[in-house]
Amino acid sequence: MTAPFGLRLGRAVERTGTRACIGLDPHLDRFPAELQRTWAGLDGAARRAAQAEAVQTFNRRVLERIAGSVPAVKPQLAFYEELGAAGWKALEDTCAEARRQGILVVADAKRGDIESTARAYGQAILADDGPLAADAITVSPWLGLDTLDPFLDLVDREGKGIFVLVRTTNPGSPVLQHWGDPRAALVLASAVGRLRPGDGLSSVGAVVGAQVPAEEVKQIRASMPDAWFLVPGFGAQGGTRADCLRGARDDGMGVLVSASRSVLYPDAGGGDPWSAIESAVRAFAREVAL
Amino acid sequence: MTAPFGLRLGRAVERTGTRACIGLDPHLDRFPAELQRTWAGLDGAARRAAQAEAVQTFNRRVLERIAGSVPAVKPQLAFYEELGAAGWKALEDTCAEARRQGILVVADAKRGDIESTARAYGQAILADDGPLAADAITVSPWLGLDTLDPFLDLVDREGKGIFVLVRTTNPGSPVLQHWGDPRAALVLASAVGRLRPGDGLSSVGAVVGAQVPAEEVKQIRASMPDAWFLVPGFGAQGGTRADCLRGARDDGMGVLVSASRSVLYPDAGGGDPWSAIESAVRAFAREVAL
Repeated sequence: MTAPFGLRLGRAVERTGTRACIGLDPHLDRFPAELQRTWAGLDGAARRAAQAEAVQTFNRRVLERIAGSVPAVKPQLAFYEELGAAGWKALEDTCAEARRQGILVVADAKRGDIESTARAYGQAILADDGPLAADAITVSPWLGLDTLDPFLDLVDREGKGIFVLVRTTNPGSPVLQHWGDPRAALVLASAVGRLRPGDGLSSVGAVVGAQVPAEEVKQIRASMPDAWFLVPGFGAQGGTRADCLRGARDDGMGVLVSASRSVLYPDAGGGDPWSAIESAVRAFAREVAL
Repeated sequence: MTAPFGLRLGRAVERTGTRACIGLDPHLDRFPAELQRTWAGLDGAARRAAQAEAVQTFNRRVLERIAGSVPAVKPQLAFYEELGAAGWKALEDTCAEARRQGILVVADAKRGDIESTARAYGQAILADDGPLAADAITVSPWLGLDTLDPFLDLVDREGKGIFVLVRTTNPGSPVLQHWGDPRAALVLASAVGRLRPGDGLSSVGAVVGAQVPAEEVKQIRASMPDAWFLVPGFGAQGGTRADCLRGARDDGMGVLVSASRSVLYPDAGGGDPWSAIESAVRAFAREVAL
Protein backbone atom coordinates (compact mmCIF):
# COMPACT_ATOMS: atom_id res chain seq x y z
CA MET A 1 0.00 0.00 0.00
CA THR A 2 1.05 3.59 -0.69
CA ALA A 3 2.60 5.38 2.29
CA PRO A 4 0.39 7.92 4.11
CA PHE A 5 0.13 11.31 2.42
CA GLY A 6 1.59 13.19 5.39
CA LEU A 7 4.71 11.06 5.20
CA ARG A 8 4.95 11.20 1.40
CA LEU A 9 4.73 14.99 1.45
CA GLY A 10 7.42 15.14 4.13
CA ARG A 11 9.75 13.01 2.00
CA ALA A 12 9.05 15.14 -1.08
CA VAL A 13 9.84 18.33 0.84
CA GLU A 14 13.09 16.81 2.10
CA ARG A 15 14.03 15.48 -1.35
CA THR A 16 13.46 18.82 -3.12
CA GLY A 17 14.62 20.93 -0.17
CA THR A 18 11.68 23.30 -0.42
CA ARG A 19 8.16 23.86 0.82
CA ALA A 20 7.00 25.35 -2.49
CA CYS A 21 3.76 24.21 -4.13
CA ILE A 22 2.96 25.52 -7.61
CA GLY A 23 -0.68 26.56 -8.08
CA LEU A 24 -1.53 25.31 -11.58
CA ASP A 25 -4.20 27.93 -12.25
CA PRO A 26 -4.60 28.53 -15.96
CA HIS A 27 -5.12 32.26 -16.52
CA LEU A 28 -5.58 32.11 -20.27
CA ASP A 29 -5.10 35.82 -20.89
CA ARG A 30 -1.63 35.55 -19.40
CA PHE A 31 -0.51 32.48 -21.35
CA PRO A 32 2.49 32.81 -23.70
CA ALA A 33 1.47 34.42 -26.99
CA GLU A 34 2.16 31.25 -29.01
CA LEU A 35 -0.62 29.51 -27.03
CA GLN A 36 -3.07 32.41 -27.05
CA ARG A 37 -3.04 32.30 -30.84
CA THR A 38 -4.53 28.79 -30.85
CA TRP A 39 -8.04 29.90 -29.91
CA ALA A 40 -8.16 33.26 -31.70
CA GLY A 41 -11.36 33.71 -33.66
CA LEU A 42 -13.13 30.71 -32.11
CA ASP A 43 -16.11 30.83 -29.78
CA GLY A 44 -18.44 28.67 -27.71
CA ALA A 45 -17.52 25.00 -27.34
CA ALA A 46 -14.84 25.18 -30.06
CA ARG A 47 -13.09 27.98 -28.18
CA ARG A 48 -13.24 26.05 -24.91
CA ALA A 49 -11.81 22.95 -26.62
CA ALA A 50 -8.89 24.94 -28.09
CA GLN A 51 -8.28 26.65 -24.76
CA ALA A 52 -8.33 23.33 -22.90
CA GLU A 53 -5.77 21.97 -25.33
CA ALA A 54 -3.61 25.03 -24.66
CA VAL A 55 -3.97 24.45 -20.90
CA GLN A 56 -2.84 20.86 -21.34
CA THR A 57 0.20 21.98 -23.34
CA PHE A 58 1.00 24.77 -20.88
CA ASN A 59 0.83 22.46 -17.86
CA ARG A 60 2.90 19.73 -19.53
CA ARG A 61 5.63 22.17 -20.39
CA VAL A 62 5.59 23.66 -16.89
CA LEU A 63 5.65 20.21 -15.25
CA GLU A 64 8.59 19.06 -17.38
CA ARG A 65 10.52 22.15 -16.36
CA ILE A 66 9.81 21.94 -12.63
CA ALA A 67 9.99 18.18 -12.00
CA GLY A 68 12.46 17.54 -9.23
CA SER A 69 12.47 21.12 -7.97
CA VAL A 70 9.17 21.24 -6.06
CA PRO A 71 7.32 18.66 -3.97
CA ALA A 72 3.78 19.42 -5.14
CA VAL A 73 1.44 21.22 -7.51
CA LYS A 74 -2.05 22.50 -6.76
CA PRO A 75 -4.47 22.73 -9.68
CA GLN A 76 -7.48 24.92 -8.84
CA LEU A 77 -10.48 23.06 -10.26
CA ALA A 78 -12.53 26.16 -11.06
CA PHE A 79 -10.16 27.20 -13.86
CA TYR A 80 -10.58 23.83 -15.56
CA GLU A 81 -14.32 23.64 -15.05
CA GLU A 82 -14.90 26.94 -16.79
CA LEU A 83 -13.75 25.10 -19.92
CA GLY A 84 -16.35 22.40 -19.33
CA ALA A 85 -15.74 18.77 -20.29
CA ALA A 86 -12.66 19.75 -22.32
CA GLY A 87 -11.27 21.46 -19.21
CA TRP A 88 -11.80 18.34 -17.14
CA LYS A 89 -9.94 16.37 -19.77
CA ALA A 90 -7.02 18.80 -19.49
CA LEU A 91 -7.16 18.38 -15.71
CA GLU A 92 -7.08 14.59 -15.98
CA ASP A 93 -4.09 14.87 -18.27
CA THR A 94 -2.33 17.30 -15.93
CA CYS A 95 -2.78 15.04 -12.90
CA ALA A 96 -1.46 12.05 -14.88
CA GLU A 97 1.53 14.05 -16.11
CA ALA A 98 2.37 15.25 -12.57
CA ARG A 99 2.24 11.65 -11.40
CA ARG A 100 4.63 10.62 -14.18
CA GLN A 101 6.99 13.40 -13.09
CA GLY A 102 6.84 12.30 -9.44
CA ILE A 103 5.14 15.51 -8.24
CA LEU A 104 2.36 15.27 -5.66
CA VAL A 105 -1.03 16.69 -6.68
CA VAL A 106 -3.18 18.69 -4.26
CA ALA A 107 -6.57 19.19 -5.94
CA ASP A 108 -7.85 22.58 -4.82
CA ALA A 109 -11.51 21.68 -4.98
CA LYS A 110 -12.93 22.99 -1.69
CA ARG A 111 -15.69 20.41 -1.86
CA GLY A 112 -17.99 19.83 1.10
CA ASP A 113 -21.10 17.70 0.94
CA ILE A 114 -22.76 14.77 2.69
CA GLU A 115 -22.97 11.00 2.41
CA SER A 116 -23.19 9.55 -1.09
CA THR A 117 -22.36 12.94 -2.61
CA ALA A 118 -19.16 13.28 -0.59
CA ARG A 119 -18.27 9.71 -1.59
CA ALA A 120 -18.75 10.64 -5.24
CA TYR A 121 -16.41 13.63 -4.84
CA GLY A 122 -13.86 11.32 -3.22
CA GLN A 123 -14.14 9.00 -6.21
CA ALA A 124 -13.97 11.92 -8.68
CA ILE A 125 -10.92 13.56 -7.18
CA LEU A 126 -8.89 11.24 -4.93
CA ALA A 127 -9.58 7.56 -5.58
CA ASP A 128 -6.81 5.68 -7.37
CA ASP A 129 -9.28 4.21 -9.86
CA GLY A 130 -11.01 7.57 -10.46
CA PRO A 131 -10.42 10.12 -13.22
CA LEU A 132 -8.02 12.42 -11.31
CA ALA A 133 -6.45 10.22 -8.60
CA ALA A 134 -5.00 13.28 -6.87
CA ASP A 135 -2.88 12.82 -3.75
CA ALA A 136 -4.80 15.30 -1.62
CA ILE A 137 -7.85 17.58 -1.71
CA THR A 138 -8.96 20.82 -0.07
CA VAL A 139 -12.33 20.50 1.67
CA SER A 140 -14.85 22.93 3.11
CA PRO A 141 -16.11 22.04 6.60
CA TRP A 142 -19.28 24.19 6.90
CA LEU A 143 -21.70 21.24 6.71
CA GLY A 144 -19.85 19.42 9.52
CA LEU A 145 -17.03 16.98 10.01
CA ASP A 146 -19.12 13.98 8.97
CA THR A 147 -18.70 15.35 5.44
CA LEU A 148 -15.04 14.36 5.72
CA ASP A 149 -15.71 10.66 6.37
CA PRO A 150 -15.54 9.47 2.74
CA PHE A 151 -12.28 11.38 2.29
CA LEU A 152 -10.90 9.94 5.52
CA ASP A 153 -11.65 6.47 4.15
CA LEU A 154 -9.32 7.30 1.26
CA VAL A 155 -6.75 8.64 3.73
CA ASP A 156 -6.84 5.27 5.48
CA ARG A 157 -7.15 2.98 2.46
CA GLU A 158 -5.14 4.70 -0.26
CA GLY A 159 -2.72 7.01 1.56
CA LYS A 160 -4.49 10.19 0.44
CA GLY A 161 -4.52 13.58 2.18
CA ILE A 162 -7.01 16.29 3.16
CA PHE A 163 -6.57 20.00 3.79
CA VAL A 164 -9.56 21.38 5.70
CA LEU A 165 -10.30 25.08 5.17
CA VAL A 166 -9.66 26.30 8.69
CA ARG A 167 -8.81 29.98 8.31
CA THR A 168 -8.59 32.28 5.29
CA THR A 169 -8.04 36.04 5.19
CA ASN A 170 -10.23 37.32 2.39
CA PRO A 171 -12.18 40.42 3.52
CA GLY A 172 -15.37 38.46 4.34
CA SER A 173 -13.64 35.61 6.17
CA PRO A 174 -14.35 36.71 9.77
CA VAL A 175 -18.14 36.58 9.50
CA LEU A 176 -18.26 32.82 10.08
CA GLN A 177 -14.65 31.85 10.83
CA HIS A 178 -14.43 34.32 13.73
CA TRP A 179 -17.95 33.83 15.00
CA GLY A 180 -18.44 32.90 18.66
CA ASP A 181 -16.09 32.64 21.61
CA PRO A 182 -13.81 30.82 21.12
CA ARG A 183 -13.86 31.60 17.44
CA ALA A 184 -15.33 28.98 15.11
CA ALA A 185 -12.02 28.51 13.25
CA LEU A 186 -10.27 27.52 16.49
CA VAL A 187 -13.03 25.13 17.50
CA LEU A 188 -12.71 23.61 14.06
CA ALA A 189 -8.91 23.37 14.23
CA SER A 190 -9.16 21.52 17.48
CA ALA A 191 -11.75 19.06 16.13
CA VAL A 192 -9.82 18.47 12.89
CA GLY A 193 -6.55 18.04 14.81
CA ARG A 194 -8.01 15.02 16.57
CA LEU A 195 -9.10 13.21 13.38
CA ARG A 196 -5.91 11.39 12.37
CA PRO A 197 -3.14 12.15 14.80
CA GLY A 198 0.03 11.15 12.97
CA ASP A 199 3.14 9.84 14.29
CA GLY A 200 5.24 12.33 12.52
CA LEU A 201 3.15 14.33 10.07
CA SER A 202 -0.56 13.76 9.75
CA SER A 203 -2.42 13.26 6.47
CA VAL A 204 -5.19 15.59 7.65
CA GLY A 205 -4.03 19.16 7.33
CA ALA A 206 -5.45 22.66 7.25
CA VAL A 207 -5.60 25.58 4.87
CA VAL A 208 -4.28 28.59 6.81
CA GLY A 209 -3.91 31.85 4.88
CA ALA A 210 -0.55 33.62 4.75
CA GLN A 211 -2.00 36.77 6.34
CA VAL A 212 -3.50 35.10 9.43
CA PRO A 213 -2.13 36.97 12.47
CA ALA A 214 0.79 35.27 14.21
CA GLU A 215 -1.10 34.73 17.47
CA GLU A 216 -3.93 32.93 15.68
CA VAL A 217 -1.54 30.76 13.66
CA LYS A 218 0.09 29.74 16.94
CA GLN A 219 -3.28 28.76 18.39
CA ILE A 220 -4.14 26.70 15.31
CA ARG A 221 -0.72 25.00 15.41
CA ALA A 222 -1.23 24.18 19.10
CA SER A 223 -4.45 22.35 18.18
CA MET A 224 -2.91 20.62 15.18
CA PRO A 225 0.70 19.88 16.15
CA ASP A 226 1.23 17.21 13.47
CA ALA A 227 -0.69 18.81 10.64
CA TRP A 228 0.50 20.11 7.31
CA PHE A 229 -0.66 23.69 6.76
CA LEU A 230 -1.34 24.54 3.15
CA VAL A 231 -0.60 28.27 2.96
CA PRO A 232 -1.92 30.11 -0.07
CA GLY A 233 -1.13 33.78 -0.55
CA PHE A 234 2.56 33.97 -1.39
CA GLY A 235 3.65 36.59 -3.90
CA ALA A 236 0.77 37.96 -5.98
CA GLN A 237 -1.47 37.89 -2.91
CA GLY A 238 1.02 39.80 -0.79
CA GLY A 239 2.33 37.16 1.63
CA THR A 240 6.05 37.36 2.48
CA ARG A 241 8.35 34.47 3.34
CA ALA A 242 7.97 35.23 7.05
CA ASP A 243 4.16 35.35 6.80
CA CYS A 244 4.02 32.05 4.96
CA LEU A 245 6.40 30.12 7.20
CA ARG A 246 4.97 31.38 10.46
CA GLY A 247 3.06 28.15 11.08
CA ALA A 248 6.06 25.82 10.58
CA ARG A 249 6.94 23.37 13.32
CA ASP A 250 10.24 23.70 15.16
CA ASP A 251 11.84 21.30 12.64
CA GLY A 252 10.74 23.59 9.79
CA MET A 253 8.26 21.03 8.47
CA GLY A 254 4.45 21.14 8.41
CA VAL A 255 4.06 24.01 5.97
CA LEU A 256 3.42 23.85 2.23
CA VAL A 257 3.37 27.30 0.63
CA SER A 258 1.57 27.84 -2.66
CA ALA A 259 2.08 30.50 -5.31
CA SER A 260 0.52 30.66 -8.72
CA ARG A 261 0.30 33.91 -10.64
CA SER A 262 3.68 35.23 -9.49
CA VAL A 263 5.51 32.14 -10.75
CA LEU A 264 3.49 31.01 -13.78
CA TYR A 265 3.10 34.40 -15.41
CA PRO A 266 6.35 36.28 -14.87
CA ASP A 267 7.35 39.12 -17.16
CA ALA A 268 9.63 37.36 -19.64
CA GLY A 269 10.81 40.72 -20.99
CA GLY A 270 10.55 39.48 -24.57
CA GLY A 271 12.65 36.37 -23.82
CA ASP A 272 11.59 32.71 -23.72
CA PRO A 273 8.47 32.49 -21.52
CA TRP A 274 9.21 28.89 -20.46
CA SER A 275 12.66 29.78 -19.14
CA ALA A 276 11.14 32.74 -17.31
CA ILE A 277 8.63 30.42 -15.62
CA GLU A 278 11.36 27.97 -14.68
CA SER A 279 13.44 30.78 -13.15
CA ALA A 280 10.45 32.14 -11.24
CA VAL A 281 9.65 28.69 -9.85
CA ARG A 282 13.25 28.16 -8.76
CA ALA A 283 13.38 31.58 -7.10
CA PHE A 284 10.15 30.81 -5.24
CA ALA A 285 11.48 27.39 -4.22
CA ARG A 286 14.59 29.04 -2.75
CA GLU A 287 12.43 31.64 -1.01
CA VAL A 288 10.64 28.94 0.98
CA ALA A 289 13.56 26.50 1.11
CA LEU A 290 13.59 24.05 3.99
CA MET B 1 -32.69 40.56 -20.55
CA THR B 2 -33.86 37.40 -18.82
CA ALA B 3 -36.21 37.96 -15.88
CA PRO B 4 -34.71 37.53 -12.39
CA PHE B 5 -34.38 33.93 -11.21
CA GLY B 6 -36.65 34.46 -8.19
CA LEU B 7 -39.44 35.59 -10.47
CA ARG B 8 -38.81 32.89 -13.09
CA LEU B 9 -38.96 30.19 -10.44
CA GLY B 10 -42.18 31.66 -9.09
CA ARG B 11 -43.76 31.53 -12.55
CA ALA B 12 -42.56 27.97 -13.10
CA VAL B 13 -44.05 26.87 -9.78
CA GLU B 14 -47.36 28.53 -10.67
CA ARG B 15 -47.38 27.08 -14.18
CA THR B 16 -46.71 23.51 -13.05
CA GLY B 17 -48.72 23.86 -9.82
CA THR B 18 -46.02 22.22 -7.73
CA ARG B 19 -42.91 22.97 -5.67
CA ALA B 20 -41.19 19.74 -6.73
CA CYS B 21 -37.57 19.76 -7.90
CA ILE B 22 -36.13 16.52 -9.27
CA GLY B 23 -32.61 15.76 -8.07
CA LEU B 24 -30.85 14.38 -11.17
CA ASP B 25 -28.35 12.27 -9.25
CA PRO B 26 -27.17 9.36 -11.36
CA HIS B 27 -26.87 6.30 -9.12
CA LEU B 28 -25.57 3.91 -11.74
CA ASP B 29 -26.23 0.75 -9.78
CA ARG B 30 -29.91 1.62 -9.69
CA PHE B 31 -30.28 2.45 -13.39
CA PRO B 32 -32.67 0.35 -15.50
CA ALA B 33 -31.06 -2.98 -16.49
CA GLU B 34 -30.97 -2.06 -20.21
CA LEU B 35 -28.58 0.79 -19.37
CA GLN B 36 -26.47 -1.12 -16.86
CA ARG B 37 -25.63 -3.62 -19.60
CA THR B 38 -23.86 -0.91 -21.63
CA TRP B 39 -20.77 -0.78 -19.41
CA ALA B 40 -20.57 -4.42 -18.38
CA GLY B 41 -17.02 -5.79 -18.71
CA LEU B 42 -15.40 -2.39 -19.24
CA ASP B 43 -13.08 -0.61 -16.85
CA GLY B 44 -11.08 2.58 -16.35
CA ALA B 45 -11.74 5.43 -18.78
CA ALA B 46 -13.72 3.20 -21.17
CA ARG B 47 -16.09 2.27 -18.36
CA ARG B 48 -16.52 5.90 -17.34
CA ALA B 49 -17.25 6.89 -20.95
CA ALA B 50 -19.92 4.18 -21.31
CA GLN B 51 -21.42 5.11 -17.96
CA ALA B 52 -21.50 8.81 -18.89
CA GLU B 53 -23.30 7.93 -22.09
CA ALA B 54 -25.84 5.95 -20.06
CA VAL B 55 -26.28 8.95 -17.73
CA GLN B 56 -26.95 11.17 -20.71
CA THR B 57 -29.55 8.73 -22.05
CA PHE B 58 -31.14 8.28 -18.62
CA ASN B 59 -31.46 12.02 -18.04
CA ARG B 60 -32.83 12.71 -21.51
CA ARG B 61 -35.51 10.08 -21.09
CA VAL B 62 -36.41 11.36 -17.64
CA LEU B 63 -36.52 14.99 -18.82
CA GLU B 64 -38.78 14.13 -21.77
CA ARG B 65 -41.16 12.38 -19.39
CA ILE B 66 -41.32 15.12 -16.77
CA ALA B 67 -41.28 18.28 -18.92
CA GLY B 68 -44.25 20.41 -17.97
CA SER B 69 -44.86 18.64 -14.67
CA VAL B 70 -42.11 20.14 -12.49
CA PRO B 71 -40.54 23.60 -12.35
CA ALA B 72 -36.93 22.57 -11.85
CA VAL B 73 -34.29 19.87 -11.76
CA LYS B 74 -31.21 19.75 -9.56
CA PRO B 75 -28.21 17.83 -10.91
CA GLN B 76 -25.68 17.05 -8.17
CA LEU B 77 -22.28 17.74 -9.74
CA ALA B 78 -20.38 15.12 -7.73
CA PHE B 79 -22.14 12.26 -9.52
CA TYR B 80 -21.04 13.60 -12.90
CA GLU B 81 -17.50 14.43 -11.81
CA GLU B 82 -16.86 10.90 -10.67
CA LEU B 83 -17.09 10.01 -14.37
CA GLY B 84 -14.46 12.63 -15.20
CA ALA B 85 -14.50 14.59 -18.46
CA ALA B 86 -17.11 12.22 -19.91
CA GLY B 87 -19.32 12.93 -16.91
CA TRP B 88 -19.00 16.67 -17.43
CA LYS B 89 -20.03 16.16 -21.04
CA ALA B 90 -23.15 14.30 -19.86
CA LEU B 91 -23.82 17.17 -17.46
CA GLU B 92 -23.50 19.76 -20.23
CA ASP B 93 -25.91 17.74 -22.34
CA THR B 94 -28.36 17.38 -19.45
CA CYS B 95 -28.41 21.12 -18.76
CA ALA B 96 -28.97 21.86 -22.46
CA GLU B 97 -31.77 19.30 -22.66
CA ALA B 98 -33.50 20.73 -19.57
CA ARG B 99 -33.33 24.17 -21.15
CA ARG B 100 -34.91 22.82 -24.33
CA GLN B 101 -37.69 21.32 -22.23
CA GLY B 102 -38.27 24.59 -20.37
CA ILE B 103 -37.20 23.21 -16.98
CA LEU B 104 -35.05 25.37 -14.69
CA VAL B 105 -31.67 23.94 -13.67
CA VAL B 106 -30.32 24.31 -10.14
CA ALA B 107 -26.69 23.14 -10.21
CA ASP B 108 -26.02 21.52 -6.85
CA ALA B 109 -22.33 22.42 -6.72
CA LYS B 110 -21.84 23.81 -3.19
CA ARG B 111 -18.89 25.85 -4.44
CA GLY B 112 -17.30 28.48 -2.24
CA ASP B 113 -14.04 30.20 -3.10
CA ILE B 114 -12.58 33.68 -3.47
CA GLU B 115 -11.96 36.27 -6.17
CA SER B 116 -10.82 34.97 -9.56
CA THR B 117 -11.58 31.40 -8.50
CA ALA B 118 -15.18 32.22 -7.59
CA ARG B 119 -15.49 34.06 -10.91
CA ALA B 120 -14.27 30.96 -12.72
CA TYR B 121 -16.90 28.84 -10.96
CA GLY B 122 -19.55 31.38 -11.97
CA GLN B 123 -18.37 31.08 -15.56
CA ALA B 124 -18.24 27.28 -15.35
CA ILE B 125 -21.69 26.80 -13.89
CA LEU B 126 -23.96 29.83 -14.34
CA ALA B 127 -22.81 32.15 -17.14
CA ASP B 128 -24.92 32.05 -20.29
CA ASP B 129 -21.83 31.67 -22.47
CA GLY B 130 -20.31 28.97 -20.22
CA PRO B 131 -20.50 25.19 -20.56
CA LEU B 132 -23.46 24.58 -18.21
CA ALA B 133 -25.38 27.88 -18.17
CA ALA B 134 -27.47 26.68 -15.21
CA ASP B 135 -30.20 28.93 -13.81
CA ALA B 136 -29.03 28.73 -10.21
CA ILE B 137 -26.28 27.27 -8.04
CA THR B 138 -25.87 26.12 -4.46
CA VAL B 139 -22.96 27.84 -2.69
CA SER B 140 -21.07 27.27 0.56
CA PRO B 141 -20.55 30.40 2.70
CA TRP B 142 -17.74 29.31 5.06
CA LEU B 143 -15.10 31.58 3.48
CA GLY B 144 -17.36 34.63 3.81
CA LEU B 145 -19.98 36.49 1.85
CA ASP B 146 -17.44 38.17 -0.44
CA THR B 147 -17.18 34.74 -2.07
CA LEU B 148 -20.71 35.33 -3.37
CA ASP B 149 -19.87 38.52 -5.28
CA PRO B 150 -19.09 36.93 -8.66
CA PHE B 151 -22.33 34.92 -8.43
CA LEU B 152 -24.26 38.05 -7.45
CA ASP B 153 -22.92 39.73 -10.60
CA LEU B 154 -24.58 36.95 -12.58
CA VAL B 155 -27.75 37.40 -10.54
CA ASP B 156 -27.78 41.06 -11.57
CA ARG B 157 -26.59 40.73 -15.16
CA GLU B 158 -28.06 37.43 -16.35
CA GLY B 159 -31.03 36.76 -14.07
CA LYS B 160 -29.34 33.84 -12.30
CA GLY B 161 -30.03 32.53 -8.78
CA ILE B 162 -28.08 31.43 -5.70
CA PHE B 163 -28.98 29.13 -2.83
CA VAL B 164 -26.63 29.67 0.11
CA LEU B 165 -26.13 26.67 2.41
CA VAL B 166 -27.68 28.10 5.56
CA ARG B 167 -28.75 25.06 7.58
CA THR B 168 -28.48 21.33 6.98
CA THR B 169 -29.32 18.47 9.32
CA ASN B 170 -26.67 15.85 8.73
CA PRO B 171 -25.33 14.53 12.06
CA GLY B 172 -22.25 16.80 12.04
CA SER B 173 -24.09 19.96 11.00
CA PRO B 174 -24.32 21.66 14.43
CA VAL B 175 -20.56 21.91 15.01
CA LEU B 176 -20.23 25.08 12.89
CA GLN B 177 -23.82 25.96 11.96
CA HIS B 178 -24.93 26.09 15.60
CA TRP B 179 -21.74 27.62 16.95
CA GLY B 180 -22.01 30.84 18.99
CA ASP B 181 -24.92 32.80 20.36
CA PRO B 182 -26.87 33.60 18.28
CA ARG B 183 -26.05 30.54 16.22
CA ALA B 184 -23.87 31.03 13.15
CA ALA B 185 -26.62 29.81 10.78
CA LEU B 186 -28.96 32.55 12.00
CA VAL B 187 -26.30 35.23 11.71
CA LEU B 188 -25.69 33.99 8.19
CA ALA B 189 -29.39 33.95 7.29
CA SER B 190 -29.72 37.52 8.36
CA ALA B 191 -26.68 38.63 6.32
CA VAL B 192 -27.77 36.70 3.24
CA GLY B 193 -31.33 38.00 3.55
CA ARG B 194 -30.05 41.54 3.06
CA LEU B 195 -28.10 40.79 -0.14
CA ARG B 196 -30.78 41.16 -2.81
CA PRO B 197 -34.09 42.03 -1.21
CA GLY B 198 -36.64 41.21 -3.90
CA ASP B 199 -39.85 42.75 -4.58
CA GLY B 200 -41.72 39.57 -4.59
CA LEU B 201 -39.32 36.65 -4.49
CA SER B 202 -35.57 37.17 -4.25
CA SER B 203 -32.98 35.50 -6.47
CA VAL B 204 -30.79 34.84 -3.43
CA GLY B 205 -32.18 31.89 -1.50
CA ALA B 206 -31.10 29.41 1.14
CA VAL B 207 -30.67 25.68 1.48
CA VAL B 208 -32.67 24.69 4.56
CA GLY B 209 -32.88 20.96 5.33
CA ALA B 210 -36.27 19.28 5.69
CA GLN B 211 -35.52 18.18 9.25
CA VAL B 212 -34.60 21.61 10.62
CA PRO B 213 -36.79 22.21 13.72
CA ALA B 214 -39.88 24.36 13.11
CA GLU B 215 -38.74 27.12 15.45
CA GLU B 216 -35.42 27.49 13.64
CA VAL B 217 -37.07 27.49 10.20
CA LYS B 218 -39.30 30.29 11.45
CA GLN B 219 -36.30 32.32 12.55
CA ILE B 220 -34.56 31.81 9.20
CA ARG B 221 -37.74 32.81 7.35
CA ALA B 222 -38.02 35.95 9.48
CA SER B 223 -34.51 36.96 8.33
CA MET B 224 -35.17 36.05 4.71
CA PRO B 225 -38.82 36.93 4.07
CA ASP B 226 -38.48 37.01 0.26
CA ALA B 227 -36.11 34.09 -0.18
CA TRP B 228 -36.63 30.79 -1.90
CA PHE B 229 -35.72 27.90 0.39
CA LEU B 230 -34.30 24.90 -1.40
CA VAL B 231 -35.33 21.99 0.80
CA PRO B 232 -33.52 18.70 0.25
CA GLY B 233 -34.50 15.64 2.20
CA PHE B 234 -37.91 14.59 0.91
CA GLY B 235 -38.62 10.88 0.66
CA ALA B 236 -35.48 8.74 0.81
CA GLN B 237 -33.98 11.05 3.42
CA GLY B 238 -37.09 10.87 5.63
CA GLY B 239 -38.67 14.32 5.24
CA THR B 240 -42.48 14.41 5.13
CA ARG B 241 -44.65 16.89 3.24
CA ALA B 242 -45.19 18.88 6.44
CA ASP B 243 -41.45 18.97 7.19
CA CYS B 244 -40.60 20.16 3.70
CA LEU B 245 -43.25 22.87 3.44
CA ARG B 246 -42.70 24.28 6.91
CA GLY B 247 -40.71 27.24 5.58
CA ALA B 248 -43.28 28.33 2.98
CA ARG B 249 -44.56 31.88 3.05
CA ASP B 250 -48.20 32.57 3.80
CA ASP B 251 -48.96 32.49 0.07
CA GLY B 252 -47.46 29.00 -0.15
CA MET B 253 -44.51 30.20 -2.23
CA GLY B 254 -40.81 30.42 -1.36
CA VAL B 255 -40.14 26.71 -1.03
CA LEU B 256 -38.66 24.35 -3.62
CA VAL B 257 -38.56 20.74 -2.39
CA SER B 258 -36.12 18.30 -3.91
CA ALA B 259 -36.24 14.52 -4.10
CA SER B 260 -33.97 12.23 -6.03
CA ARG B 261 -33.61 8.57 -5.11
CA SER B 262 -37.27 8.09 -4.18
CA VAL B 263 -38.48 9.32 -7.57
CA LEU B 264 -35.74 8.27 -9.99
CA TYR B 265 -35.28 4.74 -8.76
CA PRO B 266 -38.73 3.42 -7.85
CA ASP B 267 -39.43 -0.29 -7.76
CA ALA B 268 -40.91 -0.88 -11.22
CA GLY B 269 -42.05 -4.36 -10.16
CA GLY B 270 -40.87 -5.86 -13.46
CA GLY B 271 -42.79 -3.26 -15.51
CA ASP B 272 -41.48 -0.41 -17.67
CA PRO B 273 -38.93 1.52 -15.56
CA TRP B 274 -39.57 4.81 -17.40
CA SER B 275 -43.29 4.74 -16.67
CA ALA B 276 -42.51 3.93 -13.05
CA ILE B 277 -40.24 7.00 -12.86
CA GLU B 278 -42.88 9.18 -14.47
CA SER B 279 -45.49 7.98 -11.97
CA ALA B 280 -43.16 8.55 -9.03
CA VAL B 281 -42.39 12.08 -10.21
CA ARG B 282 -46.06 12.87 -10.62
CA ALA B 283 -46.89 11.50 -7.17
CA PHE B 284 -44.10 13.61 -5.65
CA ALA B 285 -45.31 16.69 -7.56
CA ARG B 286 -48.82 16.18 -6.12
CA GLU B 287 -47.38 15.65 -2.65
CA VAL B 288 -45.83 19.12 -2.69
CA ALA B 289 -48.47 20.75 -4.91
CA LEU B 290 -48.95 24.48 -4.56
